[in-house]
Amino acid sequence: MAPSASAADRSFLEQALALAALGEGTTSPNPRVGCVLVREGRVVGRGFHRAAGAPHAEALAVAEAGERSRGATLYVNLEPCCHSGRTPPCADLLVRSGVERVVASCCDPNPLVDGGGFERLRAAGVRVDVGLLAEEARRLNAGFCERHAGGRPLVTLKAAVTQDGMIAALEGRSRWITAPAARRAAHRLRYRHDAVLVGAATVRRDAPRLTVRLPGVRAERLRAILSPRLDLDAGKPPFGEESCERLPRVYVGEGVSEAAVAPFAGRADIVRVPMRRLGHLDLDAVLDDLARLDVLSVLVEGGSRTFAGFLESGSVDRVALFVAPRLLGARGGTPLLDLRSVAEPRGGWRVIAEDRVALGEDVLVMGRISREAERD
Amino acid sequence: MAPSASAADRSFLEQALALAALGEGTTSPNPRVGCVLVREGRVVGRGFHRAAGAPHAEALAVAEAGERSRGATLYVNLEPCCHSGRTPPCADLLVRSGVERVVASCCDPNPLVDGGGFERLRAAGVRVDVGLLAEEARRLNAGFCERHAGGRPLVTLKAAVTQDGMIAALEGRSRWITAPAARRAAHRLRYRHDAVLVGAATVRRDAPRLTVRLPGVRAERLRAILSPRLDLDAGKPPFGEESCERLPRVYVGEGVSEAAVAPFAGRADIVRVPMRRLGHLDLDAVLDDLARLDVLSVLVEGGSRTFAGFLESGSVDRVALFVAPRLLGARGGTPLLDLRSVAEPRGGWRVIAEDRVALGEDVLVMGRISREAERD
Repeated sequence: MAPSASAADRSFLEQALALAALGEGTTSPNPRVGCVLVREGRVVGRGFHRAAGAPHAEALAVAEAGERSRGATLYVNLEPCCHSGRTPPCADLLVRSGVERVVASCCDPNPLVDGGGFERLRAAGVRVDVGLLAEEARRLNAGFCERHAGGRPLVTLKAAVTQDGMIAALEGRSRWITAPAARRAAHRLRYRHDAVLVGAATVRRDAPRLTVRLPGVRAERLRAILSPRLDLDAGKPPFGEESCERLPRVYVGEGVSEAAVAPFAGRADIVRVPMRRLGHLDLDAVLDDLARLDVLSVLVEGGSRTFAGFLESGSVDRVALFVAPRLLGARGGTPLLDLRSVAEPRGGWRVIAEDRVALGEDVLVMGRISREAERD
Repeated sequence: MAPSASAADRSFLEQALALAALGEGTTSPNPRVGCVLVREGRVVGRGFHRAAGAPHAEALAVAEAGERSRGATLYVNLEPCCHSGRTPPCADLLVRSGVERVVASCCDPNPLVDGGGFERLRAAGVRVDVGLLAEEARRLNAGFCERHAGGRPLVTLKAAVTQDGMIAALEGRSRWITAPAARRAAHRLRYRHDAVLVGAATVRRDAPRLTVRLPGVRAERLRAILSPRLDLDAGKPPFGEESCERLPRVYVGEGVSEAAVAPFAGRADIVRVPMRRLGHLDLDAVLDDLARLDVLSVLVEGGSRTFAGFLESGSVDRVALFVAPRLLGARGGTPLLDLRSVAEPRGGWRVIAEDRVALGEDVLVMGRISREAERD
């Protein structure tokens, strides 16, 4: 791509990415896609995908451009599809409309597409350039790409943590580590994920509703809970949340009895998964189940044992840490990671920070996670 | 000051502050002072204080301006002195030189001055305006101001900490939490302080030299160690550091025997101070001793019990946290603060961040510390 990429190409593709971003929180399990059609240096059509079942971005752009599609260049963040799903294949539509060139950021990792869209375009004589702004495009659809490349949802750990690494003071008290601006941003983060997951200890202590609470937004996310022994109170939140259509999904160990499950009838979906060691559930089984429900991305909100379990299982892709400018003291408080320390400072996990956002007095650090080396 | 402050006043005063900053690391126990003399909108003289015993900034500026001092305005970050120390009083010199107006950021809290300089100037008919850029000026001489206002050195906690609040992995291993850029900045921080202080556990484990190691810089800082029982090895660093003129100063409990002290003869200055509770030294007594040695600022470099002791004693003014983008796990590692957690997240200490500096992959957070509320 690089040799033929011009400043104009980049600028139009950035417009397409900005359009794609408008689908935030509503397109799952589909990817976010935006595009612009350009003829003779002018935008003649544009579109973005709003929701599964709604028209694809390309179809909207072609409809707007009409006859002006002929000879135009399409700028799009993801490969146009070549399969008939709820809508007909976009690659065919583009060929029929006379589009001469397609500039796309990246390939669609969905095995139903995976290069097939580009192939069909090229076979029909359309010039295709792929790769410009690829990293930005993949980040925009990180959950979608992870789901189709790795077969499981993108996992993001989200925590509010003090400068000395604590997520709660004495007796697990965590309200509030951060200020209101950070707490609003945390709800926006929930909105951007398909599922929210917490451990049983957090449910017992905080009785969180796990709903998305943002002004003017009605959105429901799958609420997932890990509780190996199902030692939860079916009478307290998040159970019995009347505003939610779907029941919370509680992952329990295989040995949990029918009698223990009974109080949750009509209040939770109980899913038995294998245990691994030391009272931990098999997190791969949990993520497989979520993938089957079309969950592309899951926000793991704690507590410190749940964070530790996900990190140790190697399934964490990203972190979102709301860092509060506070010092609490370690003894008797709850550390971010209830995990045996690694042997060497360079032998743990790295946060490859991609963004630091000031939110009032707090700072949101977002980034990828990578393992530095093997543990002792 | 505000009504008479013009953009020109601010600009000249900023030049004076920039000159003052050039004295970094060399003026103690004197303050950093810079000034410019301005006549008819032009700078006719300038100066900054280089070191105790060297000429004061005002004297240098007047010497440069010569006859052009007559009718000029002096811009200076600190009140001109009115007492004869190693140099004659600057207030008298300014009056003699015919300076008509003095614009100063703040009063000199040294009880030998403390408004007396301004008084002498006003009595001689010089117009004096005080208060412009006062906060910047006080920050520049934070140690000096603290020493004279509170009678004790400015205390800054400095630590390299992971994103999950750990200062060491298993068995206290802390080399290295941060990358080279942050470690260089830490030496610069030592350079900016008069004393460096660590606890006995840190000395036993790391045998730190506690010297300033910066390219092209020869500077020695007082090396202070807290060791209530004097359970240290006199044969290891920081003892026997040949490049240092002054011996490390070790604060020990009053009960430490002469026999225990004997191996440190010629290798350390041992100072007995009262004990407080639970094996902690009386930190007020330590800070009083440092103040008597003209230490304006002390950098407390750990470990986690020493940090905790200073925080609990209420004597911490500032923190400098080098935050590394790492996660290590809490169990078996060393947390930043080996301190019983406060009862509520809003009941601890606040870091009022004044500066966040990216240093390679790490971030330096500098700020003031304030207690949020009483502990339970």
